[in-house]
Amino acid sequence: MLFSKLFLYTLRQAPKEAEVISHQLSLRAGLLNSLASGVFSYLPLGLRVLRKIESIIRRHMNELGGQEVLLPALQPLSLWQKTGRDEILGETMIRFKDRRGREMVLGPTHEEVITDLVAKYVNSYKQLPLLLYQIQTKFRDEIRPRFGVIRSCEFIMKDAYSFDATAEGLDKVYNGIYSAYLSIFSECGLQIVDMEADTGFIGGSASAEFLAVAEAGEDIVYFCPDCSKYSRSESCPSCKKSGLSPIKTMEVGHIFKLGTKYSQSLKAYFLDEKGKNRPLEMGCYGIGVSRIIAAIIEAHHDEKGIVWPEKVSPFTLEILPLGGEDSSLVQFAFELYHQLQQKGYEVLLDERKESAGVKFNDALLLGLPYVVVVGKNSFGRGEVEIYQRRDNRKITLSKDKIIEWLEDKISYL
Amino acid sequence: MLFSKLFLYTLRQAPKEAEVISHQLSLRAGLLNSLASGVFSYLPLGLRVLRKIESIIRRHMNELGGQEVLLPALQPLSLWQKTGRDEILGETMIRFKDRRGREMVLGPTHEEVITDLVAKYVNSYKQLPLLLYQIQTKFRDEIRPRFGVIRSCEFIMKDAYSFDATAEGLDKVYNGIYSAYLSIFSECGLQIVDMEADTGFIGGSASAEFLAVAEAGEDIVYFCPDCSKYSRSESCPSCKKSGLSPIKTMEVGHIFKLGTKYSQSLKAYFLDEKGKNRPLEMGCYGIGVSRIIAAIIEAHHDEKGIVWPEKVSPFTLEILPLGGEDSSLVQFAFELYHQLQQKGYEVLLDERKESAGVKFNDALLLGLPYVVVVGKNSFGRGEVEIYQRRDNRKITLSKDKIIEWLEDKISYL
Repeated sequence: MLFSKLFLYTLRQAPKEAEVISHQLSLRAGLLNSLASGVFSYLPLGLRVLRKIESIIRRHMNELGGQEVLLPALQPLSLWQKTGRDEILGETMIRFKDRRGREMVLGPTHEEVITDLVAKYVNSYKQLPLLLYQIQTKFRDEIRPRFGVIRSCEFIMKDAYSFDATAEGLDKVYNGIYSAYLSIFSECGLQIVDMEADTGFIGGSASAEFLAVAEAGEDIVYFCPDCSKYSRSESCPSCKKSGLSPIKTMEVGHIFKLGTKYSQSLKAYFLDEKGKNRPLEMGCYGIGVSRIIAAIIEAHHDEKGIVWPEKVSPFTLEILPLGGEDSSLVQFAFELYHQLQQKGYEVLLDERKESAGVKFNDALLLGLPYVVVVGKNSFGRGEVEIYQRRDNRKITLSKDKIIEWLEDKISYL
Repeated sequence: MLFSKLFLYTLRQAPKEAEVISHQLSLRAGLLNSLASGVFSYLPLGLRVLRKIESIIRRHMNELGGQEVLLPALQPLSLWQKTGRDEILGETMIRFKDRRGREMVLGPTHEEVITDLVAKYVNSYKQLPLLLYQIQTKFRDEIRPRFGVIRSCEFIMKDAYSFDATAEGLDKVYNGIYSAYLSIFSECGLQIVDMEADTGFIGGSASAEFLAVAEAGEDIVYFCPDCSKYSRSESCPSCKKSGLSPIKTMEVGHIFKLGTKYSQSLKAYFLDEKGKNRPLEMGCYGIGVSRIIAAIIEAHHDEKGIVWPEKVSPFTLEILPLGGEDSSLVQFAFELYHQLQQKGYEVLLDERKESAGVKFNDALLLGLPYVVVVGKNSFGRGEVEIYQRRDNRKITLSKDKIIEWLEDKISYL
């Protein structure tokens, strides 16, 4: 992609409403734009990051035998009345009456819809276990939307739902998803605190949450260095050591053993091996997909901008010709651009007629893992400089060696 | 994918509410499930088809230099009041007041949002032309939702928006998209009638619609064999020939030259080469993505089921072992399954312990382009039969020749 063609306009300063660093950098680096409080447009760069996160999640869910579906946002209120969650969710759930008088809601989550769906098809233990998931837009009328995509009214979630014949089956898929989540977050570059949690408005018998360490996080956890355990209180529940130091985190995933709570309310029964009619054992498993973008930026930035982990970077690398009108230098940059693209790299070429300072500052703000700087002096010596954003290290290379060097470094493709 | 693991349950009979063949077959072949009138869940098979259509569209939009974004469904009503379209759309647009008293709508389309977005960033002719698109969910409160995804309240559209400095620039992108649309629909296997159209509630100076020939279509067009032209009246507007025969079609795409209608209302101005402040010349270009599924089925089915065009088929092919417990036959089917998957084919293996009749009827209903039947007698002779769904032709092959034969046939991968 040529920078001059890209729908990307960086900002020197973040708008005042952006209180936290991830929100500020999302706006400054042109990932997102705010349409209204708590409502965002994904610009091309932000959408690229989102798609990479989605594909990491999809791969892990498919490996677990998950099957992708796409459920509607529009849902009849009557379905929520069957589980009583219309009252529990209260004003957080957006409701309206359609022109034919039907009472409808915009799905803040999909336990009711999926249970109703599965009940229509599954009636025997032979059809189990079943793991369905979707990556889909949710709506919640937040009383105080803030922090960009960390707490917004419209956001993308991966929500998965498991259906089993037995509690042991549920345990198995729950544990499988637990470890897949750790891999997913690790591939996204997040440091995770995983711990038992409240079941909240979702309900069920057990739950665990996955918290990303983040300065903007509103969930405080405590770490006991003696027990190597995280908790929610200042003194360790195991060894009673007190004065533990707080760590700020934000929730990026939450999984629940629902048991038969929803299957009973929504009559999702099956015949077991003995011919007995029983409610399905269910679990549900969420990841805040849009929120991961914020969590990554919270964890990976410096005073100059974002520092993308390789697997979620909007482009693999950037080429930065800084030679003004030097035609052999510009030609070299374009040739390198085409060569790298042919090798399957996603390359951003900043061919704008801007000063070296402007272009270099934008490169730092955007935070692609590698910036190949083709500068006038070094190019004259047959060399280029590769700027490694992770540690801001500069590597000088013969210009014939760049591709080899990059191929060696970028092994994840 | 193993059939027994797939979340797919075919129906012998379509539910009564399904009036048209595409709706009936979507439900019978397990592509969709109806949650409420006009609201559907995409099941794994339907989502696979949807994703293939999306990727055909995406490829063509990217080739035109389009950049993908993702705009929110939640929109402030105030934005629609600026163009006056809140009144034009009336009750079709879903509206609600959020808990903080903001008047919000669910986007039935995105001209207002994208114009407002572009106005924030673009202020010079140097930033033009610009083509942005998204594949996103729209909401319309249809007074009478019917015909499955043909007229539903929640549906997926590809909507693109172009921004140019001049009317000539707009003409150029409009014409480029016009011919890309013809390629997209052709790849989806649709026979298209393209013609000038009313600009309707979108407005603008010119528009063309793309109508797929479909029995369930509600748009009637007439073809004049003498002029080779389509029209909307029974007698040809050119040669006055009368008694033309009607063709039923459904709209799958619609493109508009908007001119400066939206850019003026929403103050999307730019400085031209002479330093004069002018409104952007805009176009908008829609494809009904979910509706294409219905249009394809309308055009490609027989009395036994769907007949998927290859590029949008949910799987490349199906393997159908019909040998009961014959272990060498079953082993052969599984080996073939793994070999074809390794070659990049998407393969459905129907290993269910159902009768040959049930399995074969399901294969015809699902309508994958090729069904490799591994039958007891022919397998004993070292042969398999390939059933070509397009023309229901049966080809008998030595079992060592299958892969070669398929590789020759399936060239689009």
